[in-house]
Parts: sequence; structure tokens; C-alpha cells
Amino acid sequence: MEADLWLRYKKYLFENVDPFMRLDISRMNFPAGYLEEMTPRIRQALREMDSLEAGAIANADEKRMVGHYWLRAPERAPTPEITQDITNVVAAVKSFAAKIRQGLVKGPQGGRFTKLLVIGIGGSALGAQLLAHSLASPEGTIKSYHFDNTDPDGMDMVLQEIGAGLAHTLAIVISKSGGTIETRNGMIEAMAAYSSQGLSFADCAVAITERESLLDRMAQSQGWLMRFPLWDWVGGRTSITSPVGLLPAALLGIDIDAFLQGAAKTDELTRREEVLNNPAALMALMWYHGTGGCGKKDMIIIPYKDRLALFPRYLQQLVMESLGKRQGRNGDIVNQGISVFGNKGSTDQHSYVQQLRDGVDNFFVTFIEVLQDRALPSIEVEPAVTAGDYLHGFLHGTREALTERGRESLTLTLRQFNAGALGMLVALYERAVGLYAGLINVNAYHQPGVEAGKKAAADVIRLQNKVLTFLGAHGDEHFSVEEIAAAIGEPEAAETIFHLLEHAAANVDHRIMKLSAQPSFLAKYSLAGMG
Amino acid sequence: MEADLWLRYKKYLFENVDPFMRLDISRMNFPAGYLEEMTPRIRQALREMDSLEAGAIANADEKRMVGHYWLRAPERAPTPEITQDITNVVAAVKSFAAKIRQGLVKGPQGGRFTKLLVIGIGGSALGAQLLAHSLASPEGTIKSYHFDNTDPDGMDMVLQEIGAGLAHTLAIVISKSGGTIETRNGMIEAMAAYSSQGLSFADCAVAITERESLLDRMAQSQGWLMRFPLWDWVGGRTSITSPVGLLPAALLGIDIDAFLQGAAKTDELTRREEVLNNPAALMALMWYHGTGGCGKKDMIIIPYKDRLALFPRYLQQLVMESLGKRQGRNGDIVNQGISVFGNKGSTDQHSYVQQLRDGVDNFFVTFIEVLQDRALPSIEVEPAVTAGDYLHGFLHGTREALTERGRESLTLTLRQFNAGALGMLVALYERAVGLYAGLINVNAYHQPGVEAGKKAAADVIRLQNKVLTFLGAHGDEHFSVEEIAAAIGEPEAAETIFHLLEHAAANVDHRIMKLSAQPSFLAKYSLAGMG
Repeated sequence: MEADLWLRYKKYLFENVDPFMRLDISRMNFPAGYLEEMTPRIRQALREMDSLEAGAIANADEKRMVGHYWLRAPERAPTPEITQDITNVVAAVKSFAAKIRQGLVKGPQGGRFTKLLVIGIGGSALGAQLLAHSLASPEGTIKSYHFDNTDPDGMDMVLQEIGAGLAHTLAIVISKSGGTIETRNGMIEAMAAYSSQGLSFADCAVAITERESLLDRMAQSQGWLMRFPLWDWVGGRTSITSPVGLLPAALLGIDIDAFLQGAAKTDELTRREEVLNNPAALMALMWYHGTGGCGKKDMIIIPYKDRLALFPRYLQQLVMESLGKRQGRNGDIVNQGISVFGNKGSTDQHSYVQQLRDGVDNFFVTFIEVLQDRALPSIEVEPAVTAGDYLHGFLHGTREALTERGRESLTLTLRQFNAGALGMLVALYERAVGLYAGLINVNAYHQPGVEAGKKAAADVIRLQNKVLTFLGAHGDEHFSVEEIAAAIGEPEAAETIFHLLEHAAANVDHRIMKLSAQPSFLAKYSLAGMG
Repeated sequence: MEADLWLRYKKYLFENVDPFMRLDISRMNFPAGYLEEMTPRIRQALREMDSLEAGAIANADEKRMVGHYWLRAPERAPTPEITQDITNVVAAVKSFAAKIRQGLVKGPQGGRFTKLLVIGIGGSALGAQLLAHSLASPEGTIKSYHFDNTDPDGMDMVLQEIGAGLAHTLAIVISKSGGTIETRNGMIEAMAAYSSQGLSFADCAVAITERESLLDRMAQSQGWLMRFPLWDWVGGRTSITSPVGLLPAALLGIDIDAFLQGAAKTDELTRREEVLNNPAALMALMWYHGTGGCGKKDMIIIPYKDRLALFPRYLQQLVMESLGKRQGRNGDIVNQGISVFGNKGSTDQHSYVQQLRDGVDNFFVTFIEVLQDRALPSIEVEPAVTAGDYLHGFLHGTREALTERGRESLTLTLRQFNAGALGMLVALYERAVGLYAGLINVNAYHQPGVEAGKKAAADVIRLQNKVLTFLGAHGDEHFSVEEIAAAIGEPEAAETIFHLLEHAAANVDHRIMKLSAQPSFLAKYSLAGMG
């Protein structure tokens, strides 16, 4: 069997010399003839991708082009204006970052900016976090911090860590639409923090947003340091090669040219029509095989490289938000998607490889291997054995141990990890997601399900306002949840009213008084006077 | 339907006043009669837990007692010796931590220790990481760093971040068996780093390991600062209330008494025989309902609290390593387990709630809600609305949006987040895992599948030594993978030989010379002379 595996390895190995990339699909149990059988379908997906890259309205419901591939090859954009716009924006990013790094643009009390506070969520956060975590030098002159939620306590923690350094902290507010609630809240909390230290937020702030958005207009009217545009043809989850990723990266001293070039070269590889020569096509076909084309197995991503510990989370967003769709492009109910998780190896072996080998067979693994352990020579941890030899040994040992039990895996190999390699990984997975969406016939570029949660959250806030207004109008009187629900004409919303009152009563802000009861849904609430 | 949901909420709500905890199971679609029907089985699991807590050999294959519950209630240990031992060790942890924090034990160049380097992996890492991430003050006098892998580059990054601070860095080496390879490698790399700065590692080092282990004896013979014992009745994934979690936490200034007390009080709650009054029993029954008792759905954990962002990863290890088993306790092949993932809300909404609402229905969610947003008053982000109101709104909005589509969820609510609350969460999930293991009849306390990966890794290292020895004996001669495999009598291992040579050739350490070829499995390798 070992010998058969070696033949299978050699038969199906994808390898590219420059940039170096290897994809091994031999440990996926697809049957003979599978690739041939799927070739017409993947070719169709490749043709759709060509048309997307040429500027078709690929995101049909939102009537938008999908242009993240142009960001690293502006000459491929469908109009000379877009080409020029991208080129100008990348140049502006580099020039602004250089000025900040050289201290030509100074903080509000003089002196260089030494910290970044990146305010954004989801697609406006993970790219910058991935770049910072994987590529920023711990000895860099600028260090980044992130507000990526609307958690007050989380923001307090970040601000405490920055401390008096706020006077040297450049804030980057990122929201494509300019109206993302969590980001707006983070910005307002940050503004209050700057203000409490007597600092002008505008003198420290940069906006990345669509032209003429609410955020763009505010930044302009307040005279922020700088504004960088986003385009409606870039989705958040594929915005890492736009200013969303590039500006924070350039400020941290990351080689964004190498990053873009890694992505551009991989885009070239992954346009190839010949399936065995196209790593993204192979990957999409393996996902299709692994999940039965309907998400029946999870995709576990295990990079054996600490720097890549955030990459599975980045892919979780890219894959799940792109593929997790209720309707196919023709309107059928399909309930598609692939669940993605993982952290890093060999660490994760101590967490869940027990289940992978012995437990439910509901997954396939992607191992990500980086051949170079570190730039400098290693010490020995045993005679003639390095720590990196063990890292490598754990990866291949686990791969074997899974194969022995019939558990499937892919292995993706890079020579070394650097900005170019990250660009390769990003572009490879972006293309694989696009091709897989073609295979299962869903629109990978919209996210209708996210709106429902946002709308429901807005409903909670609207209801809270109504409840507080009611209580405010009734002095010291106490009311039960059901009394309030009836009084404000929202009898159906009793449960939500209970939750929001419990939350309000646990915080001082709304001056809610509670007469406790057991069980607590029998409690009564009032609104304390201004005292 | 909303009104029905409110009735269902009130009917099934579990609530405890002190310590405050609420568990809402109303959004799991279990049928009427389910709890009654399952009562005999969960009672049986509770009785098994009683016997485990009384000192039975609950981990049958390893012939060990399972005693993590005693760690927070030493008086419940089965012998007075164990009771006394636990009490002494906790006192020693507190006393040592106080001395370090007060500067009574100084660094090798004088001055206080201001940094911790915690070296451990899996169960010897995640507990300390969770405590540090969720509870350490960003303004604390001691800051912690972690080696939790055998990645050379990852260790370099941590050491660069510590920089010249190494002279003030206390190293804690944690390995229960004292022989964990990744941890040994991290320790050796750390020793080299201290040594390169002229520092005595022994003067900065603490060991946490079983008495008389390899590590214990080495620490003793080298005169390390301190050694703390572990016991064979504590598994790694349940060691957070042992010195593994307590020592790093105490050094960071975390209130370990409150942490232990939170766990102890929750242990009391979760011993209750009445199902509706026992949150761990309810939780185990909901997992059973949600997964069909066979892992058919994933458990997604979303705490709406930045401090808890590592908690889903902690649970991933606790749940998957405990439940992911090939054989039941009676020897049947069962391939059990539950896949667990998640990060934090509302951040994750922007990542995968699209799929949760619209895509594959292969999961149930656990929302973790903390009612108090922050200790101090909040500013308004809109008239009469705080950032925390939105955090709360997003949680309940998402919960509603999922219910609308028939997706199931549990909601666990705490009043505030602090050391006691973390103790509660840990104890609740430990007990739920134990009870669920009873329901599905697996041993939650062993991990036979982990050994296979370790053994396979050792095989790779053994093979590498053989290959290097062979090449070393053949001067400048170049050999193909298959020639080497044949020559060393390992023809079946050709693929592994290829992988290890590719890794070795990408690093300088083994002086491998490669004559490249395309495809690269046709390359030839030699070992360069000492030059």
C-alpha cells in the first residue's frame, strides 16, 4: 500500500518551480477517472472566471463586477480608468506609508507614529490581522493593535495596552460602505479616548472607504490625515490586496510589492485550463470530492508554521461567507457551504488529532507545509536533529496516521514563508473558492444572510429605545416584562424585552432599577430618575 | 410562534443566583418528553461521575483515577494524603508567585522578573494561554509569552519580542510526563537563547511535571528555581486548575482563589441529580440531541466577549480530545466525537453567520453572553445607545435570525466576566463532557489516537537519521530517492524519504546538496563534506 501511495503521489503531484508551490492530492480517495469526468465542469467554471476577470457582472444580485484580481494586475482591469485608479491608489499607499515610517508626517504632539490602531471588522479586519501576525517583525518600529468588534471591554483592553502611546498612534478606520455599526462604534470609542488625552483624532486618523460614503465625507469634513478609496467591485473578504490590507501592511514595513507579486503570479498559474496544471482547479475538485459537493464534510486547515496561525481563520471567512448560500444561481434552495476551522500544527495535534484519527470521519485536512524552518542555522535538539525536523516529522507522521485510518488530506507545500508566499496562499484560495462556487453553481460574491442578523440587531436596539422611553415616562413605577411588552404594543417581543432589560440592568448606563424575582423573568423594572 | 418561544424559554430556563449562571435550551428543537425519556441515562452518567469523584479508576485503560475536581475541593479527594498534597501545592504556588511578584526572588542580573515564558503544548499550554488572554491586565507588571510548538521560526519571533528582556524572564517548562517532544525542543531552544545572553537558565527556570519524571530529575540536578508537581490523575486538557494553569495565572496577578472557587461552586451545581436543575446535565443532553449522539453536527461556540476569544479553542481541545474516540468502553467501534470551533461575536458574524443562516445545517451554536459590558459607564454611540447595547443586540439578533431558519442554539449567560466566571465556565464544560461521555459510553480520559501521530513522527526522524547516515557514508555521490530507499532497505518509505530530503535540502543544517530535476521527485541528493 505504501508503494501504491508513492505511485499515486508521483502521478498527481502539482508542482511549480517559480514561484515554488506543490499541491499533493494523492491522499484524497477520489476514484480513477474522477478528474477526467469533472473536467468539463471545472472548465466551465474556469470560463466563468475568465468572464468575471474581464469585468462581467459576476455578482448578479448586487449588480457588481468582481475585481479583486485586478488589484495585483491593474492592466487586466476592464477599463483604463480602473487600471489608472488602482495604480494611483497603490502608489499613494506606499507614499503615505513611507512618510509615516520616516517621520515626515508626525503625531499630534510631534514625534513619529509608533503604533497603529486598525478599526474594522470581518473583511475589513482579518486581512490586516493576518498580514500583521504573519509578517510584521516583532522588532518593527511600528506595532499594530485592532478594534475588531463592538465589545466595550475589549476596546478598553486595547486602549490600556496602548496607554500613553495614543499620542503616537495612527488610527485607520476601515469600512467599505462607511456604515458598519461595529466599526462606527469603535471609531466613536477611539475618538473619545484620543479626546480624553487632549489629542485631535483628525490629526491621527485615516479612512479607507468607498468614495462619498458617510465615513468618507466625515473624514473629509473633519480634515483627517488621509483617505484611501475602496471600490464596489472589491468584497470585504477579498480585500486583502486592496488598501484594506496594503496600507496597514506597508505601515508595518511589510513588502507589499512582493505580496502583490506573489498573488499575481499565482493568479497566472490558476488561470491554466489544464486541470492537472492548475492548483486552484485541483483544490476545488478535491473540495468537491471531499464534501460530496454539498458540505457534508468539514475542511480542517493545519499550517505547520506559527506565523500562519491566523490563516485558517482567514479562510474560514473567505470560504464560509462565499460558499454558505441558501440559493443557487438559478434560484433553487441548495443550502450550500463548507465549514472550515483549524489553528496550527503540531499544536493542534494535541487538541483534536485524537478525534481526527479515531472519531467521526466528518472532515478532510489540508496540511500547509513550509520547507524552510528559519533563516539561520538551527541548534540540535538531539544528535543531528533540529526542532524543525520534528515539526516536519509531526506533519508527515500525522498525515500517515490519518491515511492509515482512511482519513483524507491535501498537502500544500511552500519553500519559505514571506510576503510573496502569503500572496500566493491568498490568491490560490480566492481562486479555488471562485471555481468551487462555479462547480456548485452559487454566487460566491454576495452575503444576503448577514443582513438578517444586522436587521434583527437593529430591531433589538429599536425595541430597547421604545422600552426605555416607556419606562422613562413612568417615573418610579416598576413593570414586569410582560406588562411592558403589552404597554408598548409589542406582546410578541416579550422575550427580547426580557433580554435587553437584563443587559441594561447589569450596566449603569440606562439607570435601570430592577426588583429581582426568582425566576428572574418575573422581575420588575423601572428607570431611575436623573437623581 | 414568538409567543410559543417565550413560553418555551420560561419553561426550560436554568438559572442560578449565586454564582449567577443562566442556561437557555429553548432554541434547541428537542421534542416534548425528550428530557424525561433521557433522565435514566443522564442519572446513570451522574452516578458514574460520583464514583469517579470518589476515586474510582475511571480511566480504565490507563488504570488511573480522574481527579481534576479535587483540585478545587481538596477535601473531596479519596485519601487524606491527596487532600494534603493538593493543599500544599496550591499554597506553594501562591507563595512562590508572591515572591516573584514582590521581587523577593530576582532575575539572574538582579531586578524583578517582568516576563514569563511558558513552554508547553496542548493541555500544558492552552489553560495558561486562556487565563492570560482573558484575565491578565494589559497594564500588569508581568507579561506572558508562550512557546507552544516546535516551530523554530515561531520561537525566534517570541524571543525577538522578548529581546533584551530575557534577563528578566522567568521560564516555566510544563510537561506532565516530562517527555513531550515539542516542549523539550522549546526548552532546549530557550536554554540556548538564555545562554547566548550569558544567562543561567537554571536561575530563571521552573518545572511543572510529575514527580520523578525526566524533566523533574533534570530540574533538580540543575538546581532550577522551583519545581511543582503534577499527578497522574490529572489529564492535560483538564489541568487548568492544577499548577499548569494556576502558577502562570498567579504570576500574572490573576485571582486564583476566585478562579478555583468559581469552579468549585459550579462543580456543586453540576452534581445535582435533578436534570432541570443541573446545567451540565442539560448541556450534555442538548449536545446529544443536537448531534444525534454521534457527532453528526458541529458545535460552534461564540462568546460575545473579546476576552473569551480563546475559549472556543480551549473547548475544542477539551471536547474533541475527550469525546473523539474509536471504541466505546465496551470495545465496540463507535467513531465518536463532536467537532468544535468558534472565535468571538459579533466578529464571527462577519465571517460565517452567512453560512450558518443560509448554508449547510450541520451545526448548533452556543452563544456565551456576559451581561456587564465594562466596569465603568459607557459613552453613547447614538442617543441613549452604547457600544455594549449593540454587542448585546447582535447576539440576540443573530440568535433570532438562526431560529427563523430552524438553526438550533444554546445560550449561556453570565453576569460579569472575571476569574470566578472563568472558573465556572471551565467546570461547567468539564462536567458536561464527562456526562456526555457517559451518555455515549466512551472513556473521556484517554487519548490513544494521539500516540499514533507521535509514533509516526518518531519514525520519520528515525528514517531521517538512517538517510543522513547513508549519505554521509557516500561522500559526494548523488542518489535519487528511490536509490536511497533501496540502499537503506526501506523501499516502502520512498515517499517519506522524499519529503524529509526536500525539507532537509531547504535548510542549511544537514548540509544536503540537491541536484534539482523536474518533477522534483527525480532529484538527486548528496551530503556535502564538512568543508
